[in-house]
Amino acid sequence: MARMVVIYPTPKHVEAFDRHYFDVHVPLALKLPGLRKYEVSDGPIVTPVGASDVHRIGTLYFDDLAAIGKAFASPEGQAAGADRRLFAPDETGVRMFLFDNRDV
Amino acid sequence: MARMVVIYPTPKHVEAFDRHYFDVHVPLALKLPGLRKYEVSDGPIVTPVGASDVHRIGTLYFDDLAAIGKAFASPEGQAAGADRRLFAPDETGVRMFLFDNRDV
Repeated sequence: MARMVVIYPTPKHVEAFDRHYFDVHVPLALKLPGLRKYEVSDGPIVTPVGASDVHRIGTLYFDDLAAIGKAFASPEGQAAGADRRLFAPDETGVRMFLFDNRDV
Repeated sequence: MARMVVIYPTPKHVEAFDRHYFDVHVPLALKLPGLRKYEVSDGPIVTPVGASDVHRIGTLYFDDLAAIGKAFASPEGQAAGADRRLFAPDETGVRMFLFDNRDV
């Protein structure tokens, strides 16, 4: 299954970020066509040597990379993308990675 | 289930990196006590607007964050960490995030 991992650096206003994320963004993203599963980090995100500069990580699962492309080209995808740019503009350092995985 | 996501920027020598990663590092990491599942990105890692600067992403699953801490404090964890610093030194920009997820 392919996934999009979205890494949100710790925002200036954590409470406002989380309120927007859970009240507005998650409901929009749940409408993405082809979305199989949507997971959000729960609790602190740390590194092997202590705290990280990341506040939240979202992982959205789709059948394959083509399905992710279709989802984000759809009206629902456009709306979710526009909303993301509102509460986590590109210049905040948000990172998005789309990839397929396999077991080793 | 908690996970450690390891993000490897594209190395100077991709073939040598992959050879070390799959021939040496994966077998070492598979010995980590408490490891439930180990996934590696398969194919290119892209962003919504095109190519990324990331070559590979490993995801290691454990029961919880405490289990990850125990795994990396073990002799097997020390060996895997030392090996990682050989083929992907900190200064290459490798990032590691440990976190729990929940469905939304």
